[in-house]
Amino acid sequence: MKTAQQKLSNAFSANKHICVGLDPDKSKFPKSLLSSKDSVFQFNKEIIDVTRDLALGYKLNFAFYEAEGLKGIETLHKTIDYIGSDGFIIGDAKRGDIGNTAEQYADSLFNIFKVDASTLHPYMGSDSVTPFLQFQDKLNFVLVLTSNPSAIDFEKAILQNGSFLYQKVLVEVKNWNKFSNCGIVFGATQYSELESNINSFGDLPVLLPGVGAQGGSLEDVVRLFSLNRNNNFLINSSRGIIYRSNENDFAEQARLELLRLNDSVLENKI
Amino acid sequence: MKTAQQKLSNAFSANKHICVGLDPDKSKFPKSLLSSKDSVFQFNKEIIDVTRDLALGYKLNFAFYEAEGLKGIETLHKTIDYIGSDGFIIGDAKRGDIGNTAEQYADSLFNIFKVDASTLHPYMGSDSVTPFLQFQDKLNFVLVLTSNPSAIDFEKAILQNGSFLYQKVLVEVKNWNKFSNCGIVFGATQYSELESNINSFGDLPVLLPGVGAQGGSLEDVVRLFSLNRNNNFLINSSRGIIYRSNENDFAEQARLELLRLNDSVLENKI
Repeated sequence: MKTAQQKLSNAFSANKHICVGLDPDKSKFPKSLLSSKDSVFQFNKEIIDVTRDLALGYKLNFAFYEAEGLKGIETLHKTIDYIGSDGFIIGDAKRGDIGNTAEQYADSLFNIFKVDASTLHPYMGSDSVTPFLQFQDKLNFVLVLTSNPSAIDFEKAILQNGSFLYQKVLVEVKNWNKFSNCGIVFGATQYSELESNINSFGDLPVLLPGVGAQGGSLEDVVRLFSLNRNNNFLINSSRGIIYRSNENDFAEQARLELLRLNDSVLENKI
Repeated sequence: MKTAQQKLSNAFSANKHICVGLDPDKSKFPKSLLSSKDSVFQFNKEIIDVTRDLALGYKLNFAFYEAEGLKGIETLHKTIDYIGSDGFIIGDAKRGDIGNTAEQYADSLFNIFKVDASTLHPYMGSDSVTPFLQFQDKLNFVLVLTSNPSAIDFEKAILQNGSFLYQKVLVEVKNWNKFSNCGIVFGATQYSELESNINSFGDLPVLLPGVGAQGGSLEDVVRLFSLNRNNNFLINSSRGIIYRSNENDFAEQARLELLRLNDSVLENKI
């Protein structure tokens, strides 16, 4: 089986940078699906079927599954199985806890759910990340600067040395990256910060949420990475792809949107 | 049904301050339990049976259940049901995500798992907390200064105005507390910081992990709160209570330890 690093590197070489966010929200499903026994899995399955050849991979935000209770967790497992071990799967669970607890979370994500990558909160520091780093063939995207408006509250707090807190997090993530299994989350909505920090990313893969529904520009982001000769970026789009239509053509429309996004990536690579 | 605030206030009035952390780790169970069909639930049940009359409530760290897969989630539900709606239950899941996702996490914790209180990461700012605050009869303990050694990495980062990041978080939590449904997590291992900040806690309930296995002193903490005429504190002990013995008397020993801790609370209240 390929490591997370190999999967990512192969995808980037093939100009695949778009991660499809599978954040199921039944209120946005076509009515015809709702009569299905497991409408969430059915929805995911149809999206996966038409995007598998085009997408870099899938990001599953655990919140949307946990909100459906036990059945949601079953659906999460079924979806991960359906994507299969050739796919690249980010378990977007944003975990973070003290050492002995973080071990349990890492075990859950990598051994039970068998995802390729996690997302992690940095607030509690290195202890909370270390157990994840023991999995050398996996990837861990640490939150640096997120796409939401209140990223300003703490992430952009100014430190005594004049830098932002998120910049201190970025420096630490590079220190944690001994096994080349760290990455960062950087909101695509934070364009000017992206521009002023991209030279400090080193070879960390960068997961960029916030394109589409949240207002980030794919074109700007791709051009910036390209100008900086950095090919290590994953652009996530959830609502912008999977809820393009809430009629029976939702999967077809999702594929068309992903084709459009892939074209846009190619056009903006210089 | 009583609100989380009422449950907590009743417990404090009865001098109940100890929260039993139900963090099941099979490697520490007595051998005789391991043959049980659901040994984790059986373990929790026996602990609950002998601590129900003495404990303030229970803190369930979701990591330990998620690491057991679907079965673990079933056990989590069964344990919460067994504690029942008269008990006070903290769903220690340390969640934190952007607005529309945080809504799903809040729904999961308060409507699906039906716990009384959450624990939340502050890193992403107010957006990530707001959906939890809509639940006015629940409580949300935001991580301020945690009990682990690497709290120093970011929580103790020094800001431009000379204060620590965690102190900025504390100020914000007070702003978020319009419905009196916020609390804070402050490590019992961080005694000198506790001492220098206790006057800024206002009427926020304070959840203190880190007593026992992690090295925090219950006596010191109780005396400090008492000296400051602050009765709003919850002391969590997990390993120190539930793994007192790994023989068949584990429940009996857990009860004895809780009795001892309760006595110690009373002795150190001035």
